[in-house]
Amino acid sequence: MSLNKCLVSSPATVANLGCGFDIMGLAIQEPLDRIGVKLNSNREIRISEITGPEGHKLSFSPRENLMIHVLQCFTKKLGTKQGLDITLEKHVPLSSGMGSSAASSGGVLVAANALFDNPFNNDDLVTLAMEGEKFISGAWHADNVAPCIMGGLVVIPNYEPLSLVSCPFPEDLIVVVVHPHFELPTKEARAALPKEIPLGLAVKQWGHVAAYVSSFFLQDKNGLARYMEDFVIEPARAALIPGFYDVKNAALENGAIGCSIAGGGPSVFAFTFDQDQAETIASQMALAFKKHQIECDRFYSPINPNGCHLID
Amino acid sequence: MSLNKCLVSSPATVANLGCGFDIMGLAIQEPLDRIGVKLNSNREIRISEITGPEGHKLSFSPRENLMIHVLQCFTKKLGTKQGLDITLEKHVPLSSGMGSSAASSGGVLVAANALFDNPFNNDDLVTLAMEGEKFISGAWHADNVAPCIMGGLVVIPNYEPLSLVSCPFPEDLIVVVVHPHFELPTKEARAALPKEIPLGLAVKQWGHVAAYVSSFFLQDKNGLARYMEDFVIEPARAALIPGFYDVKNAALENGAIGCSIAGGGPSVFAFTFDQDQAETIASQMALAFKKHQIECDRFYSPINPNGCHLID
Repeated sequence: MSLNKCLVSSPATVANLGCGFDIMGLAIQEPLDRIGVKLNSNREIRISEITGPEGHKLSFSPRENLMIHVLQCFTKKLGTKQGLDITLEKHVPLSSGMGSSAASSGGVLVAANALFDNPFNNDDLVTLAMEGEKFISGAWHADNVAPCIMGGLVVIPNYEPLSLVSCPFPEDLIVVVVHPHFELPTKEARAALPKEIPLGLAVKQWGHVAAYVSSFFLQDKNGLARYMEDFVIEPARAALIPGFYDVKNAALENGAIGCSIAGGGPSVFAFTFDQDQAETIASQMALAFKKHQIECDRFYSPINPNGCHLID
Repeated sequence: MSLNKCLVSSPATVANLGCGFDIMGLAIQEPLDRIGVKLNSNREIRISEITGPEGHKLSFSPRENLMIHVLQCFTKKLGTKQGLDITLEKHVPLSSGMGSSAASSGGVLVAANALFDNPFNNDDLVTLAMEGEKFISGAWHADNVAPCIMGGLVVIPNYEPLSLVSCPFPEDLIVVVVHPHFELPTKEARAALPKEIPLGLAVKQWGHVAAYVSSFFLQDKNGLARYMEDFVIEPARAALIPGFYDVKNAALENGAIGCSIAGGGPSVFAFTFDQDQAETIASQMALAFKKHQIECDRFYSPINPNGCHLID
């Protein structure tokens, strides 16, 4: 080991992206967590410090903190009993639909991997990070951890075995995310979904998925606008987010090409190619939430091509 | 009108292509129908001649022949009462899953369009050709008519309004099609499908669709092999095709990267990149059918990039 401490920046992510429920996600530029991993002289993996605006919501307990859990999985896979101290500066809001748990698990794994001279590749790291997702929500899913670790836009078609497909994306595509100040736990968002859907609706959705993915490859802006629509998940979850359709309309009326729920919500994201309009879209979306007595944070940036990466 | 007769070659097509049920199809090089449209001096649209190995199965009656029906739609849309004589040399087997009705309607429309100096674009022609599909099976679908008219590989994500996305494909991809000698009407193939499917299965399928489409764009041969698998339709329809799994295994054991039902069946198609192996794959698939007392025709070719086109 050439270093005894590694610090990484780990981004928020948006999963589903409209019609691509559970199979795609992308990384954004902001908010970012900062996560450090340092060797210690005992055999314990522990949190030494949690700071940042969201930090006070997190536990230091190994039974509750997913970062300790994923590093235990990491050292077990590596076959070491080395003790590690974790520091976390938490900015990605919890239970927001912005991949907060993915930022924690992705970041701490990329930092530990760098500390041990990169024994694991992206597939390994994404698999380990899914242990964190399972720890938190009970479900294996990679649509936040994969883009968090790899950056860019990632399609995750398969879990047995895991497969990850990086897609191209227009560099001038701006992702606007508005985060309303209430929590929507992933479990609750999952519980709102239908157990079965009509075959015709499934076909309509996978037709959109096919054309949406094609539009990313073709850099077809009209196609992205036309095909991102989600016929299955958004209608089932919209009622969990007060004012959702007002927020969506505010985005579309102000130049967004599309708008839907970020991951399991309650954050709402929109796409635009009009850089000058991004601030207006974000503030009008926030204003629509405010009419429902909900305060918001807002973010906008191009897609983050890098994902987790070392700083310092 | 610069001509008073147009003759076109109109290809067989394979729809669904594994996981892409109802949303994608491609054109092949063989078999091909030859379809002529000629001005006549009365106001009638009629069939003047039907030849070819499959021709004897078709009716000359306006109430039964879809070519008359689609040309009636064509002339109505064009606002003319011009009479037309149709000739058909029918090679694409009927009720085979190889787009026989699409070859008839696509070909006759492309011929008529040329005769009238191309008043209609591909979207118009595909929409008109769907009138033929509806006439035959009761269902609007474009996954055969679109690739028949346009050539290549086409994704059809949407019908309201119709949208058509041409995808790239590897030039060395060989499509093997084996046509067993029994008919499976589209209506019967549709009746075998479940009305509802579990959401988890739908997600698994649209994950595959996303990665399958990506693999065509990336020319990723391993991806095509990995992601073409259909979890929903093939399992429901396999029982309608005696020996289907033996035929599929014969294809896979002889170098095919994947194999599934062509359209609504009973034809079975396979993909391979091994040109030398295509004949063996086709004959071994046919041999597997023969063990179930079913004779076959077999075809193999690269994807047909042209679709319907004028000959002479």
